[in-house]
Amino acid sequence: MSSTPTPAPDLSDVFAYVDERRDEFVQRLIAYLRMPSISAWGTGMGEVAEFVAGMLGGLGLVTEVMPTAGWPMVLGRYEGAAADAPAVLLYGHYDVQPPDPLDAWVSPPFEPAIRDGRIYARGAGDNKGQHFAQMLALEALLACRGALPCNVTVLLEGEEEIGSPRMPDFVRDHRDALHADLVITSDGPVHESGRAQIVFGVRGVLSFELRARGADRDLHSGNWGGVAPNPLWTLVHLLATMKNARGEVTIDGFYDDVLPPTALEREALARLPGDLEAIRASLGASALDTPDGRGYAERLAAWPTFTINGLHGGYGGPGSKTVLPHEAFAKCDMRLVEAQRAEDVFAKVVAHVRRHAPGVEVIYQGAMDPSKTPLDSAYTAPLRQAIVAAQGEEPLLVPALGGSLPEYVFTRILGVPAFTVPYANADEANHAPNENIEVARFIAGIKTGAAMLAYLGASARP
Amino acid sequence: MSSTPTPAPDLSDVFAYVDERRDEFVQRLIAYLRMPSISAWGTGMGEVAEFVAGMLGGLGLVTEVMPTAGWPMVLGRYEGAAADAPAVLLYGHYDVQPPDPLDAWVSPPFEPAIRDGRIYARGAGDNKGQHFAQMLALEALLACRGALPCNVTVLLEGEEEIGSPRMPDFVRDHRDALHADLVITSDGPVHESGRAQIVFGVRGVLSFELRARGADRDLHSGNWGGVAPNPLWTLVHLLATMKNARGEVTIDGFYDDVLPPTALEREALARLPGDLEAIRASLGASALDTPDGRGYAERLAAWPTFTINGLHGGYGGPGSKTVLPHEAFAKCDMRLVEAQRAEDVFAKVVAHVRRHAPGVEVIYQGAMDPSKTPLDSAYTAPLRQAIVAAQGEEPLLVPALGGSLPEYVFTRILGVPAFTVPYANADEANHAPNENIEVARFIAGIKTGAAMLAYLGASARP
Repeated sequence: MSSTPTPAPDLSDVFAYVDERRDEFVQRLIAYLRMPSISAWGTGMGEVAEFVAGMLGGLGLVTEVMPTAGWPMVLGRYEGAAADAPAVLLYGHYDVQPPDPLDAWVSPPFEPAIRDGRIYARGAGDNKGQHFAQMLALEALLACRGALPCNVTVLLEGEEEIGSPRMPDFVRDHRDALHADLVITSDGPVHESGRAQIVFGVRGVLSFELRARGADRDLHSGNWGGVAPNPLWTLVHLLATMKNARGEVTIDGFYDDVLPPTALEREALARLPGDLEAIRASLGASALDTPDGRGYAERLAAWPTFTINGLHGGYGGPGSKTVLPHEAFAKCDMRLVEAQRAEDVFAKVVAHVRRHAPGVEVIYQGAMDPSKTPLDSAYTAPLRQAIVAAQGEEPLLVPALGGSLPEYVFTRILGVPAFTVPYANADEANHAPNENIEVARFIAGIKTGAAMLAYLGASARP
Repeated sequence: MSSTPTPAPDLSDVFAYVDERRDEFVQRLIAYLRMPSISAWGTGMGEVAEFVAGMLGGLGLVTEVMPTAGWPMVLGRYEGAAADAPAVLLYGHYDVQPPDPLDAWVSPPFEPAIRDGRIYARGAGDNKGQHFAQMLALEALLACRGALPCNVTVLLEGEEEIGSPRMPDFVRDHRDALHADLVITSDGPVHESGRAQIVFGVRGVLSFELRARGADRDLHSGNWGGVAPNPLWTLVHLLATMKNARGEVTIDGFYDDVLPPTALEREALARLPGDLEAIRASLGASALDTPDGRGYAERLAAWPTFTINGLHGGYGGPGSKTVLPHEAFAKCDMRLVEAQRAEDVFAKVVAHVRRHAPGVEVIYQGAMDPSKTPLDSAYTAPLRQAIVAAQGEEPLLVPALGGSLPEYVFTRILGVPAFTVPYANADEANHAPNENIEVARFIAGIKTGAAMLAYLGASARP
């Protein structure tokens, strides 16, 4: 691994500036979290795009709200650094997940509340609290120094939570505007051990829905049970042919393009702390689901999944109802690893369903390919040093995140290394009720954002 | 089969009385249907019990509303016939199924509407329209003759749609009050061919819920997919071990007590009309579900089922959501045939779940044992003749109905023959939106009810 030591920039003024404005920054984040921006439902998207654009413009960045066929991209560009300083693309997303089930929230999702040192709100961790920290890092550097140490492009998209359907074409079409030497994304949680981490890749994701139909109306189970088709049984039997009880996906060719981790990745995975009993207990689950003997870290980073996100059909109310339902659906996602491609895996899913349950409809709901940056990138050293400077500890190096971000558009379309440096706590409850971010991690995120630019600016471009 | 011909009573005055009051009777049924009585939700039960008791009392029957641990039983007794006339117990239920999904109803479930000669309302067919016809039959006989030709007990229960949990004890405890030579129930639809039928038995039913849990909260499928347990996959794999894709229940011992039909039953089943293509088309289904080569009629009458009534877990809203759900449940029912016993089958289900998915909870939700009366009963002939007199056609003889009624309490606890003579059209959509009864069948039901008592009264007690 390359580890050219970079002369350490002095950041004490910037860190002091951030500490003095801690309460103000928290209140400004709360104001941002109060604005819903639910891409799946189309709630509040235009207003929030204008809000973040206004903030970037206020920092002096050349800012554009760029329309797409979906929700707009917000772009801010700073070109005041030396021509030989690295150009950094900071990516984030201003949309959030739908907040339901609403009744499981202790405080309402769009009325941010601070409890026990955490800010609770939809988007607190995923991703508003994290890209807002990046923007405040720029604000702090500009306030203390009058300039940024790198050239910076901020790209905030509004459709990450619905699969970033516009990102590939947008990046392809704006290759020049997005030109950069590296991409930094702050999203997802820190390592579940609580340690900071640099993540070099992400799993891809493929979302689809299986929809089964029986009669054209619900039937009485006594008059029709055993003679009329039941779409719930159709889905149960179909799904059971797609993944077995040992957790192995049994779709022809599904594992064909799964590459084993490199030696460097294997070493990094082995160094990751992981108290499986503590993890199990933190979930309140009776057991973890690690059926095939692969290690926990390897399963998350380098092994694909098949998750049923939701399955619904028939009666769900109180008591019993002797009905034979007429339709049922299963919403599913698959997490994909190098060198799987979503398009290819989806074709395999469709072929499987055609063969095993030809009457079942397969509805594509979006995909992102996986992405990986080599662990021995020249930018690894300055990013590690920056995290040590801002947070006081060496980050873990994680070959790939379990979750998905559209980083393949950077590593594959732009062809540059992409790093994820998450700021949110491991129990941020993103995509779930009571999403939150620890105030301390939000503040540390602002300092880390500033330090990364400072260390990158002080390092030589490779 | 016994077929002693009974001298034909003249019913022209009674039939004319009914025809003259057709509109009035329809309006009175509509008034009754307007009153919700949803036992599963506890809606309107007391009011409706009082309403039917008031009607029975108005006919001069000795009437009681008898409290139980659940909803009350309504009992009306007429003892004015000759001591050697048969004593007939007329059974029905004044509760109805929950009406959801509400948005699938063309007109609201408790605002009865007449369209194309049908009355649409929850309970129109199941069972208000049918036991109301029985009560109007008593009214017509009493109005025309001043007396009934048989001694009659009317028993209306309020918990049939939740599995009649109180019936066995009630019948055991009131054996004397319920004393009768035979039981007649008008429930369920006529044969799907449109022909009248006499049904000699019912399948039993066992309802239960399977409940699976994973973590103590919903998780992000990217951060946790492949390492945290997914209760939807748990249910899918468990259910797939309980019934295979060919429709065979694979629970140890499930078929042990399934008796093959008798020779007489086999003959009767063979005589039932059944245009499978027309049935399939009427359901709007792409195929019927008759996987094991048994005939359609035999599958419905003499073969058990395992139906998933509802399965729910995780996200069910618009678009996709990459969530790993923390709980899921499947509501199920099994239809049972002679000589299966619900208690024994439930024990086999529990044993199966313990073995295959010990973390899954099995919640008992009620049961009724199956019941069968011999086709060659002495009462078969007068009932057939009565139907011919009232409806002009020979009824089909059906060994057992696909649906379930608590008839085992009569055949097993009281030890008397029990007959089901349905009045509702085959497409009554009971237990589903847009439940309805054809006005013509409701009126024919009143005449049939009167004719059955007249022919039974004219026949010799065996």
